[in-house]
Amino acid sequence: MKKFSLLLAVFFTASLLHAQDSLTIRKIYDEALVNGKAYESLHYLCKNIGGRLSGSANAQKAVEWSKKLMESYGFDKVYLQEVMVPHWVRGEKETAFIIDGKTRIPVPIAALGMTVATPKEGITANVVEVRSLKELETLGESVIKGKIVFFNRPFDQRFIETGHAYGMAGDQRFMGPAAAAKYGAVGVIVRSLTGSTDDYPHTGATLSGPGTQQIPAAAISTKAADKLSNMLRLRKLPLVKFYFKQSCQLLPDVLSYNVIGELTGTENPNKFISVGGHLDSWDLAEGAHDDGTGVMQSAEVLRIFKAIGYRPKNSVRAVFFMNEENGHKGGSKYAELAAQNKEQHIAAIETDEGGFTPRGFSFDGVSKDFIKSINDKYKAILEPYEVDKLTIGGSGTDIEPMKEKLPGVVLIGYRPDSQRYFDIHHTPNDVFENVNKRELELGAAGMAAFIYLIDQHGL
Amino acid sequence: MKKFSLLLAVFFTASLLHAQDSLTIRKIYDEALVNGKAYESLHYLCKNIGGRLSGSANAQKAVEWSKKLMESYGFDKVYLQEVMVPHWVRGEKETAFIIDGKTRIPVPIAALGMTVATPKEGITANVVEVRSLKELETLGESVIKGKIVFFNRPFDQRFIETGHAYGMAGDQRFMGPAAAAKYGAVGVIVRSLTGSTDDYPHTGATLSGPGTQQIPAAAISTKAADKLSNMLRLRKLPLVKFYFKQSCQLLPDVLSYNVIGELTGTENPNKFISVGGHLDSWDLAEGAHDDGTGVMQSAEVLRIFKAIGYRPKNSVRAVFFMNEENGHKGGSKYAELAAQNKEQHIAAIETDEGGFTPRGFSFDGVSKDFIKSINDKYKAILEPYEVDKLTIGGSGTDIEPMKEKLPGVVLIGYRPDSQRYFDIHHTPNDVFENVNKRELELGAAGMAAFIYLIDQHGL
Repeated sequence: MKKFSLLLAVFFTASLLHAQDSLTIRKIYDEALVNGKAYESLHYLCKNIGGRLSGSANAQKAVEWSKKLMESYGFDKVYLQEVMVPHWVRGEKETAFIIDGKTRIPVPIAALGMTVATPKEGITANVVEVRSLKELETLGESVIKGKIVFFNRPFDQRFIETGHAYGMAGDQRFMGPAAAAKYGAVGVIVRSLTGSTDDYPHTGATLSGPGTQQIPAAAISTKAADKLSNMLRLRKLPLVKFYFKQSCQLLPDVLSYNVIGELTGTENPNKFISVGGHLDSWDLAEGAHDDGTGVMQSAEVLRIFKAIGYRPKNSVRAVFFMNEENGHKGGSKYAELAAQNKEQHIAAIETDEGGFTPRGFSFDGVSKDFIKSINDKYKAILEPYEVDKLTIGGSGTDIEPMKEKLPGVVLIGYRPDSQRYFDIHHTPNDVFENVNKRELELGAAGMAAFIYLIDQHGL
Repeated sequence: MKKFSLLLAVFFTASLLHAQDSLTIRKIYDEALVNGKAYESLHYLCKNIGGRLSGSANAQKAVEWSKKLMESYGFDKVYLQEVMVPHWVRGEKETAFIIDGKTRIPVPIAALGMTVATPKEGITANVVEVRSLKELETLGESVIKGKIVFFNRPFDQRFIETGHAYGMAGDQRFMGPAAAAKYGAVGVIVRSLTGSTDDYPHTGATLSGPGTQQIPAAAISTKAADKLSNMLRLRKLPLVKFYFKQSCQLLPDVLSYNVIGELTGTENPNKFISVGGHLDSWDLAEGAHDDGTGVMQSAEVLRIFKAIGYRPKNSVRAVFFMNEENGHKGGSKYAELAAQNKEQHIAAIETDEGGFTPRGFSFDGVSKDFIKSINDKYKAILEPYEVDKLTIGGSGTDIEPMKEKLPGVVLIGYRPDSQRYFDIHHTPNDVFENVNKRELELGAAGMAAFIYLIDQHGL
């Protein structure tokens, strides 16, 4: 590709809301793209700390380091918020085989978060493949009892945003094991929640807690799922068995922390706009896109404001939530304490869909009129930065509890491009090397720009 | 991330232009995302053929395979278009060192396309670092003569679209060597044209041909460029020298081909809408994103039409241009023959900015009124597919000659997200593994959708 002739250096192309806003947003982007710190901080988090599941030593390291990082940025306040979190551990690496007569075919497998161990010798059983919870119900106890249930409904590739495909397939992982247990299944394996055909198990939490009947449950790779499904179809049920072994367990709850940094508002110190992601991550890799990018972007928003000398009218907080992956305790605690302290929350942005190139923001539970007004006000000024898709949609697990506890807050999801997320989500591939520096920085800048606009002109 | 609760299966959300259009576009996407062939075809091109520089045996293999591929898709016409192309060969792997007293620091280097060899023993000389052609001119012959000129202006990170940064830095590679030769330089090294700080040389063509004075010229990695620049600053000029050796040469021109597939229009067989990329690629890797994705998407557009039973009113062509990288001979020949044959060309789309997630289309040399009208007509129907950014901008090197030869044609550039392109562009990393299946497929579907709209409703 060559296009030297056709390119112009047009820096200030935004349809101006106000000239000052346009200039400030340009400064925000320049700071993020030229002096950005998110990428090197993410490198530290991924390479010097790594995976950091709630309750683990690494999670505690991440808390302490995050606090120091924000302190080094010179925010007005940096503090920890105590929260008790579950402490689930994977134990030894899981093993699994498809047993086809005398042949044992190894299967990439990972226990689901919060699930239980198999007996020490593992489980061997016949397999019942189902595509839905409804199908499970139709088959009932007479078919299911004593079997391993295999949930194998794939992603629907027709969705443009992959999060929709994840949402539509996700009940298998989250509800499937508990549902199968009721019919006497001895174990559950779930097709990994991804649209890609690959060799990695994609872990993730399954339903647990009081009233939930637990049987061992694990995710297998999509390639293994296709293979197993084919064999079941060709060989008939009794000839094919499945074996798996895992030694995970749930230990007593542990004291952990949300990590919070704040720039105190010059006009309304008790009014808040927050941006946050989750500090905990799955243990299979480094929690780079899920959600190292989100927390590093959140701190970067406040760092950018300080660097360009912007002092917000309202207080702006970066919140590193603990325990998004297997309990949501940090998010609940944050909302609870904010309500207790009678804080007024204007808006909360969550960034937990990967550090990919920005698309825009989605607004949780708002009216069509609200969206029209937001678009009328802000779309044109965000368009040159390619972060102008402002739609009705989800926000995020960590800020959802604010809806009930803090009436009036507008909950916002930061929406990066979704195409690559579920290739690496909850897998051994969620590592620093799969994060692009500019995509990460553009996300931080986009959120800083939008928070600046909210701070100046409201929603 | 977990968001099972907030997601809805909304398939038909487009603001409808016509209900039929909306349905057809949905069919196009379903075909691309569920039954897409572009990814597996790209795999073949990358892994079974590989790098395919004009004039090479691999380029010829690619021509023959592409013709067979399109024939297997059952297009109405598939044919080759003869074109003579340059045959530049890299020769042995290049070597380079920074010489710092007695220390030799190896430097990742690649000869620029179309440049000449060094003497067999290589070149050793002092280095003059410049940031621009203007600076070269200011220094003049007294400083430059006998030296190696080192062009080291980095990408301007502030641009949102990276193509602009490439455009602004590109004169160093394209014009720099010929300009330095005029002042008596013995060689030129250029900072690789990328915004990323990495260990790879990014090759690419430099100006050549009659009237151009040639001296050996090569790209060095950005990390090596930073190191060399630092050493020059700290050690003063005479203590640091640079050595490089390359054995590239320009052989006699070779007969090659554009490869063309066509669905003949049911109403206007002599009116054409084309979509194309270039089949040739640099020799350092597999030409995956540059431009394997582009040619595979172009064929996929026609395959999708056939698969869903859409028979276009106007003829639709997929054009695999030869020799985009170092001569543009295929693009020139195509325009020349189209004019000779009195073909009427409505629109031509070029896809040569990588197989990344779609953003939209840019229209070459059109008026603001034209863009407003295009947005009024088509933005809403493209928005749910995230390919709705319709702007004034560049089209592409291969279709540019049509502007002069075929008055009235609208030249359109397919615009994927630009953030990752120059990380891998013209490097050993431009391989199949760096292409995401869905991003590739969404691009093909986006172009098919837009060509469908042009075919039905014009521009």
